[in-house]
Amino acid sequence: MKPIKSLVLGLLAGTVIAAPTAAKEGMFTPEQLPDISEALQEAGLELDPEMLTDLTGFPMGAVVSLGGCSASFVSPEGLVVTNHHCARGSVQYNSTAENNYLANGFLAETKGAELPAAPGSRVYVTTELTDVTARVREGTEAMSPIDRYAAIEQRRKDITAECEAEAGYRCLVASYYGGAEYTLIKRLEVRDVRLVYAPADSIGKYGGDIDNWMWPRHTGDFAFYRAYVAPDGSAADFDEANVPYQPDHHLKVSAAGLDDGDFVMVAGYPGSTSRYTLLAEVENTFNWTYPTFQGLLTSWIATIENAAPEGSDARVKYESRLAGLNNYEKNLRGQIEGARRVGLVERRAAREAALSDWIAADPARAGYGETITALAALSQESATASRTNFWYNNATRPALLSAVQRLYRLSKERELPDAEREPGYQDRDMTFFRQGLQALDRRYDAAVDKAEWVLFLSGYLQQPVEERVSVFDEALGLTAETTAADLPALLDRYYASTTLGDTETRLALMEADAGTFEASEDPFVQLAVALYDYERGLENESEERSGRSLALRPAYMEAITQWQREQGGLPYPDANSTLRITFGNVMGGSPFDGMAYLPFTTLEGITQKDTGEEPFNSPQGQLDLIEAKDYGEYELESINSVPVNFLSDLDVTGGNSGSATLNARGELVGLLFDGTFESVNSDWDFDPRTTRSIHVDSRYMLWVMEKVDGADALIEEMDIVR
Amino acid sequence: MKPIKSLVLGLLAGTVIAAPTAAKEGMFTPEQLPDISEALQEAGLELDPEMLTDLTGFPMGAVVSLGGCSASFVSPEGLVVTNHHCARGSVQYNSTAENNYLANGFLAETKGAELPAAPGSRVYVTTELTDVTARVREGTEAMSPIDRYAAIEQRRKDITAECEAEAGYRCLVASYYGGAEYTLIKRLEVRDVRLVYAPADSIGKYGGDIDNWMWPRHTGDFAFYRAYVAPDGSAADFDEANVPYQPDHHLKVSAAGLDDGDFVMVAGYPGSTSRYTLLAEVENTFNWTYPTFQGLLTSWIATIENAAPEGSDARVKYESRLAGLNNYEKNLRGQIEGARRVGLVERRAAREAALSDWIAADPARAGYGETITALAALSQESATASRTNFWYNNATRPALLSAVQRLYRLSKERELPDAEREPGYQDRDMTFFRQGLQALDRRYDAAVDKAEWVLFLSGYLQQPVEERVSVFDEALGLTAETTAADLPALLDRYYASTTLGDTETRLALMEADAGTFEASEDPFVQLAVALYDYERGLENESEERSGRSLALRPAYMEAITQWQREQGGLPYPDANSTLRITFGNVMGGSPFDGMAYLPFTTLEGITQKDTGEEPFNSPQGQLDLIEAKDYGEYELESINSVPVNFLSDLDVTGGNSGSATLNARGELVGLLFDGTFESVNSDWDFDPRTTRSIHVDSRYMLWVMEKVDGADALIEEMDIVR
Repeated sequence: MKPIKSLVLGLLAGTVIAAPTAAKEGMFTPEQLPDISEALQEAGLELDPEMLTDLTGFPMGAVVSLGGCSASFVSPEGLVVTNHHCARGSVQYNSTAENNYLANGFLAETKGAELPAAPGSRVYVTTELTDVTARVREGTEAMSPIDRYAAIEQRRKDITAECEAEAGYRCLVASYYGGAEYTLIKRLEVRDVRLVYAPADSIGKYGGDIDNWMWPRHTGDFAFYRAYVAPDGSAADFDEANVPYQPDHHLKVSAAGLDDGDFVMVAGYPGSTSRYTLLAEVENTFNWTYPTFQGLLTSWIATIENAAPEGSDARVKYESRLAGLNNYEKNLRGQIEGARRVGLVERRAAREAALSDWIAADPARAGYGETITALAALSQESATASRTNFWYNNATRPALLSAVQRLYRLSKERELPDAEREPGYQDRDMTFFRQGLQALDRRYDAAVDKAEWVLFLSGYLQQPVEERVSVFDEALGLTAETTAADLPALLDRYYASTTLGDTETRLALMEADAGTFEASEDPFVQLAVALYDYERGLENESEERSGRSLALRPAYMEAITQWQREQGGLPYPDANSTLRITFGNVMGGSPFDGMAYLPFTTLEGITQKDTGEEPFNSPQGQLDLIEAKDYGEYELESINSVPVNFLSDLDVTGGNSGSATLNARGELVGLLFDGTFESVNSDWDFDPRTTRSIHVDSRYMLWVMEKVDGADALIEEMDIVR
Repeated sequence: MKPIKSLVLGLLAGTVIAAPTAAKEGMFTPEQLPDISEALQEAGLELDPEMLTDLTGFPMGAVVSLGGCSASFVSPEGLVVTNHHCARGSVQYNSTAENNYLANGFLAETKGAELPAAPGSRVYVTTELTDVTARVREGTEAMSPIDRYAAIEQRRKDITAECEAEAGYRCLVASYYGGAEYTLIKRLEVRDVRLVYAPADSIGKYGGDIDNWMWPRHTGDFAFYRAYVAPDGSAADFDEANVPYQPDHHLKVSAAGLDDGDFVMVAGYPGSTSRYTLLAEVENTFNWTYPTFQGLLTSWIATIENAAPEGSDARVKYESRLAGLNNYEKNLRGQIEGARRVGLVERRAAREAALSDWIAADPARAGYGETITALAALSQESATASRTNFWYNNATRPALLSAVQRLYRLSKERELPDAEREPGYQDRDMTFFRQGLQALDRRYDAAVDKAEWVLFLSGYLQQPVEERVSVFDEALGLTAETTAADLPALLDRYYASTTLGDTETRLALMEADAGTFEASEDPFVQLAVALYDYERGLENESEERSGRSLALRPAYMEAITQWQREQGGLPYPDANSTLRITFGNVMGGSPFDGMAYLPFTTLEGITQKDTGEEPFNSPQGQLDLIEAKDYGEYELESINSVPVNFLSDLDVTGGNSGSATLNARGELVGLLFDGTFESVNSDWDFDPRTTRSIHVDSRYMLWVMEKVDGADALIEEMDIVR
């Protein structure tokens, strides 16, 4: 038994003890690549790091965004691979009782058989990045906070509008380092996106919500889209005459795959992280907001399940919300547990103290000290405001109220020239605005909505009267004596007499002027009108705080990043849905004492988990192939099987889903699709001991395509490295 | 990162793939030791295996039984170490509101301060084993099944009675290999047992029900008793004048401990296994009985929780039942899941087919074939009977009904001479019988009992009328039309008019004659009398089947063990609460795809798990010591900490709890206390890939004793190997 002894201890020594010194933290911007090229080569990159800095070259030119997810081109004919969970809405959209593609999977035998993706589906191809910091920030330092906020927002809108003057492009001005830097990102907006291939849910969503955030994992979380453009190459709406988009670059797909310890890299669009937040915000979040909201989510889920019993029509409408709430609740639970385990609040306090010491050590840094004091006070102020508004914000969640609040706001914004309107209310936003109003159709049930409202208002009523919002209380008829038991009767008239449940009515209100709303007899409209000024007041307060932050935070970021550099760190900006690169290695770990995550799962693990019941209902054909050990060319010798999913120490977050995982030669070896339960609070604090991301292995993708689904034409279309 | 790669794969290769060929299956009887001495030495035993065969020598002479648990002597003055969960009843028995030893732990500063263990506590020291096969089986082959059963039972009782003629001894005739062999086991019955030391629940029961059956584990599951005898060395009831028992041998305790891969061995009293059961019984158990009972347990637990709300007096009475039911439910769930995962039923079918092939291969084995055919039919018959009786048996569970059924039976048995009575109704059984009737006091609440009965009867009513028991239906007034809704009213009169809730009434009935019961107006007594003949009929049928089995099963065991030997196996009898030896190595494992259990947990794991809330509420003093890394002499270098619990591949089951885990030199390196969740169906089928037992490490025991609880005198009293 001796060999095993040293091996297991080696695992412990290597993973638990050595890893912290070999942190793979970092979501680097493309411009930072020269700074990390040495680290990339040390980690194992075989490509010239210089190649990565060219966003329109190989391999970065193949990396695209789908909006909420990342993806990449894998053929010269616009074939795009992403996660199953990123394309599943399109599978659902095309499914009918007769053709249930969710249950059976979908494979277009020819290009002509490809189906339009769900409305709003996009492929964004980044074509240009421009530093616009000077133009955005010029002269704003001397302004009052509210003017500063307004000026910066207006300039961002102006720059965006100029960029979008070229048809077919979607632009955005992203803010980095808390407003220290701004980059204009120009993206070709492919609007004709078609579904090419998605395995059945029993492969692509194997393990479902139960396995979500979990290792060991056996999910075939991959699917294929194709980008189409007009014959002249310009972006266009769906049209029979459109042709496949021809990207300048596409990724090769590896059938050889990788092994434990190998270099991996992910380029994608991580959504949002909070690694530079100050202690006050971390404390408020982990000691108050998250626990409070997690408790509310638990009641909220139970309320929906009660009001929309399994099998009811209402349940169908709320399935996706329930899935989202469950996912969120599990995430929050993981965040709270994780924060406690690693002592997140204490770590942030220690970081703040160490930064203070560094500032105090040199009188030249005194300015930083004042900035941080002011920013800490501002953080505290924001935390207090978010806490005060928590129950009011929940109490104004009802679907029709939210919809009409947006509509009334639109009528007001439309009194301004387009360029001066709030983001979200400009002409460029109207397609999504309309789709949102339409979608309510399939996601709203009055009885469920009312049950939710009763729940939220019950929480609101439990707050001290002086912390409640008097205009809201008056409009709803809530007094100090009102109890939760009074609510159902009180809310009846809203649902009995509103006409906003009708889609046409809602859509028509997009054209209505403010007076129409103010004269309306509809109780939800009246409530929206009554709350309007109060909400603008809240917004102004928030913008004033943002304006102050826009002056303070860049200086704070300068201090903390300089300090980090002096400690040997590689600072990088918080995620903001822009293109980032993270690199590291295939790696298991020991998430908690006495246990280890092995780096790969195997086909046999599917059989082990399979119960025949959703979500562990692998297709029988797949189980038979596993039983027969029909691995084809896709076996990884060291595990004696085809690898299904694998772990790495990459630094990722939501939005990275669907990102191509690249090997040292820039070949696609998998797709990133999740993080482990112990990783969820890496958004606040990257802990190299516990943070692991989960990938679907390209060998499993190809094995399913070849053996289970017979997607030979697609394999043929891609460049497979064997 | 390369080193980690090969190490993790090594772990996989070693544990998952190699282990099956190095199976550590086997609960060997002391007489089998000569057969396995070579295997013991190969596995790493440094002692002469011959030493182990002497039950009164070192080290086996130090191994004792507590009845349901195992234990061992660790000082020349009768100090006994066992699991905390084996001694916890005694801690509870001595606890009061002022002296809450469960919460605070108990440590006797002097021998005089040691407290009497809970009533019925025993230390059994085995003094002699005698083969009585010939006397028990002689001439029984020619008998009818019912006569054979009766003759064998009578002879076992006679032999037991002769052995117990010597005062202070408790004897039993154990059956091995399905009745092929019988051994008389003579044990000194130490009746004066005292509690010496038990850490607080927050150490000894750390993790509670949540961690029960689970790895990773951090339970300090150890406690100390002391055996006392009369000054002349004979067993005696508690008396101030008694003196510590002086065992011939005691174990040395290792402070040096062991490391991954090291040899370990356990000697103890495993309760019961079913590894030789035939397919019919396995199928019935896993496809019907376990799933049905697991479902019932879930409702049962909910019923008690409802009827005895948290904080109520009733809940206090039912806490221990709830813990037991939860434990059982979790165990059954593990068994069902495990059986599915490893394909238990299919494996048993395959074994049966292979055995058939082996029999068919040699005409000389034809007799075996006939035996097995007959035994399979009998297995099927027994399975059918157990299925038919399942709901009736549950429907007769109410506490007072069961008690009076036993009492009425006693009145009937007492019409016979003592030697002819059923086991359980002889004079030697009356102490335990009385204690059982008394214990009801603290475990019975009429409202809860009634709610349970309604639940059981509801299940019974759902069975087809023709499968119900007419005498029971008539006595209770159940008709084909009765529904669950009728039950509460129907049962009211039982609880309203019974006097059996009174302990004195129950105890007085121990002396009553049958006529007293038959004339009683008490509804529970009347029901017991009404069911008596039916139950005796069931018992006769069962005894008739047992009589047939007693002729068939020895021949079957001869066939299967001969076949196993020819396959290179080391056959051993199913566990039967007699002394067994199992050996193997410290070893982690991969219980399921993508995960590994590391072999040791660490002090730091306690801090990781700790929430401050029971059952994860380590004493602050312990947490401070961990924070300070105050490991003393107890650090294991390879894990950079004090090991808390460890895993091995030993073959154990319930009853082994408290067993000393011995190293290659026979020193105590830990105490066995549990198995992992994946191991629970090893009782049916030992799977070396997934079966792991859990031990508390002697270094953690000594660290807690020295650093946390200051039990220096006890450390002084023991022989510590450093």
